[in-house]
Amino acid sequence: MNAGIYDVVYRRRDVRAQFTGAPIPEDVLHRILAAAHAAPSVGLSQPWDFIIVEDPAVRRAFHDHVQHERTTFAATLTTAAADRFARIKIDGVLESSLSIVVTYDPDRGSPAVLGRHAIADAGLYSVCLAIQNLWLSATAENLGVGWVSFYREPHLRQLLGIPTGIRPVAWLCVGPVTHLETVPDLERHGWRHRRPLEAAIHHNRW
Amino acid sequence: MNAGIYDVVYRRRDVRAQFTGAPIPEDVLHRILAAAHAAPSVGLSQPWDFIIVEDPAVRRAFHDHVQHERTTFAATLTTAAADRFARIKIDGVLESSLSIVVTYDPDRGSPAVLGRHAIADAGLYSVCLAIQNLWLSATAENLGVGWVSFYREPHLRQLLGIPTGIRPVAWLCVGPVTHLETVPDLERHGWRHRRPLEAAIHHNRW
Repeated sequence: MNAGIYDVVYRRRDVRAQFTGAPIPEDVLHRILAAAHAAPSVGLSQPWDFIIVEDPAVRRAFHDHVQHERTTFAATLTTAAADRFARIKIDGVLESSLSIVVTYDPDRGSPAVLGRHAIADAGLYSVCLAIQNLWLSATAENLGVGWVSFYREPHLRQLLGIPTGIRPVAWLCVGPVTHLETVPDLERHGWRHRRPLEAAIHHNRW
Repeated sequence: MNAGIYDVVYRRRDVRAQFTGAPIPEDVLHRILAAAHAAPSVGLSQPWDFIIVEDPAVRRAFHDHVQHERTTFAATLTTAAADRFARIKIDGVLESSLSIVVTYDPDRGSPAVLGRHAIADAGLYSVCLAIQNLWLSATAENLGVGWVSFYREPHLRQLLGIPTGIRPVAWLCVGPVTHLETVPDLERHGWRHRRPLEAAIHHNRW
């Protein structure tokens, strides 16, 4: 459960189809949430919250919404891209053990969040760092995580009773998996390929 | 160099004052950048780039700008908060071995980024996941990382020749450190305290 950092960085996948639905032991769930909560945050604002969604009716309602958004996206594609997209599973909302919705509260630590006066989005960045802590820890625990982003924020806010002003950042499907694929789904399905690292590195200037 | 995930999650600090300035071995730098590049990204867009800044003149110019923004922020504080802030070091730009500026390119993978049609910021989130991979890997390599956010994006864009449309997300100071503190700087200096995990967890609804 405390696998090496590089092992989990490279084993980690964005899981859609491999969830078994088996329960997550309470201590494991606590460890991955605690790891998320140990993330760095601008001005130590810790602006995240975690909503653990197990209620089948809520998950079903969210899944219906995701399917609707899938259709919306598909309609924007060329025929060739739509054919590729048709083969790609975009969520494991119903099959995973539970979901964790991660939110951002811009008012936490306000008005003077140290390090946020010049960059309004810095608090949002903090929430993402917490998500990656959770994702890597879950991988070490042999859980899969799948980040679903086919949703509209106002819809999710209403579904979960999230107060105005607090922003949902991620819907994460979490749970035991049969296995983790070695190649990302979108690469396996020919949607996109990985960019060489060298292309992403610049020296001193862009 | 492949320490356990939980070890690095809890040892990781946002470093300001402990940089030694010693060089980072090439293979170590490559490993932490490769770990960043292995992060998940919406639609496999991999929208990040990494600018490795070693040039002393560039770092000096950025440091001057950070000091200016420090003054701007300090002017917004109450007297008591300004006194606390005066004791807090906000960057290690000059003392760290080098800096890594991480950027976001919203056009990468456009026009149809799978999973981004409903959430425009999803690409920005991906960049932050890459940053956390880098941060944790660097911690495993016994390097410190300090995220500096006292800057204006247009200033940094101009300083590094970053094209219009590409957004700087982070200036990270990186390098060997004398040690990592066990308590976050802002907590040690009484700026803010850590929130109990229990307060951040909700069940099924907010």
